Amino acid sequence: MKAVRLHSYHQPPRLEEVPEPQVRDPHDVVVRVGGAGVCRTDLHIRDGWFAPAVPTELPITLGHENSGWVHEIGSAVENVAVGDPVICHPQQSCGVCPACRIGDDMRCARGLRFTGLTRDGGFAELFATTDRAVLPLPAGLRPADVAPHADAGLTVMHVVRKAVPLLGPGTRVVVVGIGGLGHIGVQCLRALTTAEVIAVDRDPDALKLATGVGAHHVVPADEQQVERVRALTGGEGAEVVIDFVGEGDAVAAAVGMVRARGTYFVVGYGGELRVPTFAVVLPEISIVGNAVGTHDDLRELMALATIGAVPVHTRTYPLDAFADAMTDLEQGRIHGRGVLVP
Amino acid sequence: MKAVRLHSYHQPPRLEEVPEPQVRDPHDVVVRVGGAGVCRTDLHIRDGWFAPAVPTELPITLGHENSGWVHEIGSAVENVAVGDPVICHPQQSCGVCPACRIGDDMRCARGLRFTGLTRDGGFAELFATTDRAVLPLPAGLRPADVAPHADAGLTVMHVVRKAVPLLGPGTRVVVVGIGGLGHIGVQCLRALTTAEVIAVDRDPDALKLATGVGAHHVVPADEQQVERVRALTGGEGAEVVIDFVGEGDAVAAAVGMVRARGTYFVVGYGGELRVPTFAVVLPEISIVGNAVGTHDDLRELMALATIGAVPVHTRTYPLDAFADAMTDLEQGRIHGRGVLVP
Amino acid sequence: MKAVRLHSYHQPPRLEEVPEPQVRDPHDVVVRVGGAGVCRTDLHIRDGWFAPAVPTELPITLGHENSGWVHEIGSAVENVAVGDPVICHPQQSCGVCPACRIGDDMRCARGLRFTGLTRDGGFAELFATTDRAVLPLPAGLRPADVAPHADAGLTVMHVVRKAVPLLGPGTRVVVVGIGGLGHIGVQCLRALTTAEVIAVDRDPDALKLATGVGAHHVVPADEQQVERVRALTGGEGAEVVIDFVGEGDAVAAAVGMVRARGTYFVVGYGGELRVPTFAVVLPEISIVGNAVGTHDDLRELMALATIGAVPVHTRTYPLDAFADAMTDLEQGRIHGRGVLVP
Amino acid sequence: MKAVRLHSYHQPPRLEEVPEPQVRDPHDVVVRVGGAGVCRTDLHIRDGWFAPAVPTELPITLGHENSGWVHEIGSAVENVAVGDPVICHPQQSCGVCPACRIGDDMRCARGLRFTGLTRDGGFAELFATTDRAVLPLPAGLRPADVAPHADAGLTVMHVVRKAVPLLGPGTRVVVVGIGGLGHIGVQCLRALTTAEVIAVDRDPDALKLATGVGAHHVVPADEQQVERVRALTGGEGAEVVIDFVGEGDAVAAAVGMVRARGTYFVVGYGGELRVPTFAVVLPEISIVGNAVGTHDDLRELMALATIGAVPVHTRTYPLDAFADAMTDLEQGRIHGRGVLVP
Repeated sequence: MKAVRLHSYHQPPRLEEVPEPQVRDPHDVVVRVGGAGVCRTDLHIRDGWFAPAVPTELPITLGHENSGWVHEIGSAVENVAVGDPVICHPQQSCGVCPACRIGDDMRCARGLRFTGLTRDGGFAELFATTDRAVLPLPAGLRPADVAPHADAGLTVMHVVRKAVPLLGPGTRVVVVGIGGLGHIGVQCLRALTTAEVIAVDRDPDALKLATGVGAHHVVPADEQQVERVRALTGGEGAEVVIDFVGEGDAVAAAVGMVRARGTYFVVGYGGELRVPTFAVVLPEISIVGNAVGTHDDLRELMALATIGAVPVHTRTYPLDAFADAMTDLEQGRIHGRGVLVP
Repeated sequence: MKAVRLHSYHQPPRLEEVPEPQVRDPHDVVVRVGGAGVCRTDLHIRDGWFAPAVPTELPITLGHENSGWVHEIGSAVENVAVGDPVICHPQQSCGVCPACRIGDDMRCARGLRFTGLTRDGGFAELFATTDRAVLPLPAGLRPADVAPHADAGLTVMHVVRKAVPLLGPGTRVVVVGIGGLGHIGVQCLRALTTAEVIAVDRDPDALKLATGVGAHHVVPADEQQVERVRALTGGEGAEVVIDFVGEGDAVAAAVGMVRARGTYFVVGYGGELRVPTFAVVLPEISIVGNAVGTHDDLRELMALATIGAVPVHTRTYPLDAFADAMTDLEQGRIHGRGVLVP
Repeated sequence: MKAVRLHSYHQPPRLEEVPEPQVRDPHDVVVRVGGAGVCRTDLHIRDGWFAPAVPTELPITLGHENSGWVHEIGSAVENVAVGDPVICHPQQSCGVCPACRIGDDMRCARGLRFTGLTRDGGFAELFATTDRAVLPLPAGLRPADVAPHADAGLTVMHVVRKAVPLLGPGTRVVVVGIGGLGHIGVQCLRALTTAEVIAVDRDPDALKLATGVGAHHVVPADEQQVERVRALTGGEGAEVVIDFVGEGDAVAAAVGMVRARGTYFVVGYGGELRVPTFAVVLPEISIVGNAVGTHDDLRELMALATIGAVPVHTRTYPLDAFADAMTDLEQGRIHGRGVLVP
Repeated sequence: MKAVRLHSYHQPPRLEEVPEPQVRDPHDVVVRVGGAGVCRTDLHIRDGWFAPAVPTELPITLGHENSGWVHEIGSAVENVAVGDPVICHPQQSCGVCPACRIGDDMRCARGLRFTGLTRDGGFAELFATTDRAVLPLPAGLRPADVAPHADAGLTVMHVVRKAVPLLGPGTRVVVVGIGGLGHIGVQCLRALTTAEVIAVDRDPDALKLATGVGAHHVVPADEQQVERVRALTGGEGAEVVIDFVGEGDAVAAAVGMVRARGTYFVVGYGGELRVPTFAVVLPEISIVGNAVGTHDDLRELMALATIGAVPVHTRTYPLDAFADAMTDLEQGRIHGRGVLVP
């Protein structure tokens, strides 16, 4: 079969012919790919960012945002049958360690077994995962339409679930960065809260997308951004700021937009958080890190998708156009998400 | 009456004769001081730290950690009678604004009306406050013994109440800085959790005090401190780190002691928090600011005091020895808390 | 001025001429009534239900769902000025006791000081309350339109806020009884959750109203109601059942509609809850009582009203038609809420 | 090997020779029994109580409170090795369904696979379970000493974890029924809260046991019990009542001991809860059912056991004295818990 494989860091991945994956363990599930989202993390993997922290043997097939249909199952698999449409959580967790016992899949004691990073991923016709990593798609959802929810949407749902209890009637939430994650974030917030949503981005097209998916206000990410958000919130700042950028000026600006007793949820990474302790202590703000999400977050997200609350803006590419998809993402030409459809 | 008053920043306050405070409003309460704790914040006030953020007209009588007996009440006061022993919350909140309605006294819409900072305080024989700022002492508690709970203990209780839900059986908590606040913190944590308590301080006497009040482990705040805490926590770091220092090397060290999914509660201030966003995002740690506490925190703390769970290590000084108390604190000669007894 | 006063239990109240209320205390607020909702509780008061539990000296002016404009204020009132439009929480709480400190206004240690029950109410041109009991209306809201929110809506908001954390994507909620409270309940649930809403009532017109305000499904409250709700929830029952009836067959039926680990919120009263302990223990269901709400609930409800999320279906009556309003309510001729407009 | 097997309801079980259990599935674990607690539920199983709700093919080996050493493991088992000391959760959950995903083991979509009820249990030399059902014992704990924690302690930990957030300083908790569960409950509450603990039982020896394990007050379960609890709580009732009896007069008495806004946790079953809806609604009390617990509860309980906080009062019997153990329990001669040691 065809697969997009990374052979060495800082080099573009290559489309090549590889053997089909097989069921080796009773809990294995092989999935026929229906859609595989192209994510900024794929660029980071290519560029070797994770290499120091997450030892991986190359080559590896990229693709951690996958959906499709069950192609083959191991003898102990009970939750899906061949032919079922599924969306795939990227982490292949054990289900037995203390973290898995409470649903914290990403902290599995076996470590990161992450599709498309430490296991062959979904930029291919087929890939192998486990029963614990697949979620049957509710009726009415098509794999190619929901693929980006497997990581982009999942991460959004994870942070939004933490934010919702802080966003009662009359509150305000700032979403920084309206790309693949941010435009899903605005929709989740509109569906799950009555908070006023303020979208911040440096790109006017991204702000247009924000308005299109329901943001109440848009603010260009320029030098006046903090003042503008303050003006939109009666001078107080917002109860919640969700930052999908996490680098450059965005970090300091995001902190400056948080209200006393408010919370700054950091999702993007790459930059530095630098703040005097008194600016955290006196107004009692919270800074909360967020990475990926749990299987239960994915289940809830699919329930939102079922009622049409979180359509993803996608642009599809055939598998052999993977390089175009990555370039379009890198050069800021995709508003929403690119999806490879083998 | 005698009062210790600050006439200009960066100058020592002076003991002088001033008129006795009077009841002016139906909700006023005049308190005869039984004890007034001497706090590092008093040094900060003297040195003008708060002047930019909290405009105050000088001179002002210092003293925000007060307890005593009700001396006179306004016509609308119903919760205390003349002669009642009381402990005094430093903030004189309004009771009507949205923040007060949910018990968030420090965020009162009227702003900071803080005894000893923007209102004359308790380094005096008498001072005036309001019915909402006094809490009748439960039977068995003596004002001079509990005075430091009015701010030091209050701040501790505030942060510990947030930490308790994170500290189930089998968890670990690091307390950084075992001074006036820290030694109360260790006791609150021992009373309210079964977590293993690790105390960190650079001063060996402070570590002795930590052991004396119940810390399971002590770690000198030297260059190996992070490694030692990691070693004591199976390499993982602690579920919770409470930092009463908040400056110098302590901040980076404290962040380094936090476990994935753990929480760093910052209480001390003066330094800078500086951390790459990925170090917050990937392990999903939380950083939570804490300042003073609510009236309800003070009520719970007095309930702990009633059962003997949080004795304060105090050294008492007569009012006219206030300068010695401040110097002893500044030079690190007090382990626990200095208290002025007029 | 004119007022509708109850002189003896089980007798209809009478419209009569009484002196205007005066400001007597620095925190008093006299309100010119813009609208006063007519509630089933008014019938219960008339019929002496509360007399054993809540000692009241008759005569009393009825009316606990009030809104209007500030007519006069005491010297210590800071949160409103004469002429301000306000909605009035029925309880005149003290602001100083432990319950008030945490926002639990209904549990005020001074006891029930409840407008229209133990204090003269709003079936009149003017009535007196306190600064802690009034909430300035946000711009765009008219007193007569929101009056029923002062108790009906408040009670709904109180229970819905408890239910929201249990109603993530993919869940189901049953609302039993679609009258004054229920039709607001359906709207709050639609605004604040993505749960599927199932409305239950014995009256077809009430079910029509339910559909009109957003219920996804309606079920007649007949002998098949439990089976129908089970069928609509995949045989499992609903995560949440909110019962605004609380009497007759509704109670047993409501319990039967709750899913394992689900919660039955009881709001209506008059009947009996009778259930084997094993039917509570084995499926681990919760049964939660709800009465009125807090001032903060009212603040959040007004924020919802501001965005148009909870219009009340009202029928207005002039003050002297109060008897018609009560009769229409008693005979089930009002769908929504009757409001007296003096 | 020898096993105690139930052949027909309402008949005593019999000790007999049966084949040793085998590993059949890759996730199976066969345990050599170190201790098996004898529980009132064993009497209920014998008497056919569960037969209508939980279809079981007889004969079955009893025993759901088991600990021991790993005897044999399947090929996919990673969390334990042969020879490891373990305690066994009674439910053999799947790990893949939505309930298991969030740690709610008892609500596993595969249904009840409950050792000693629907699967052969631990009143035997060996029994078979799964990797998800075993928890390695922390160092220092001996299987026979902790066996009752596998169900009695587990159930207690489950309910106590829900109660702890309601039991801040200054609160009161009533424990009704000081038997196998209750005496563990008192200890958990003392370890995890500073609440005042009031123990209620009709048996003076049980009340002695309560005092011995740390109850602050004891109250005989007679006609004055409600008044006495009210007197011990300033007339208010307790913030929390945990009822391990759940039948006869205990239920109504327990409800009567709950404070306004308090919670009644029902654990015991067999009786009826009967209460007017207004008595739930007006004081806003909560009634919460509790059954068994989660694997994470068991993990936390073992952490408590490790620090010596929850010693179980046990009386051991050899396996062939099982009938004496059951009779002693039935006739109220055991204070604490009987344990079979094969």
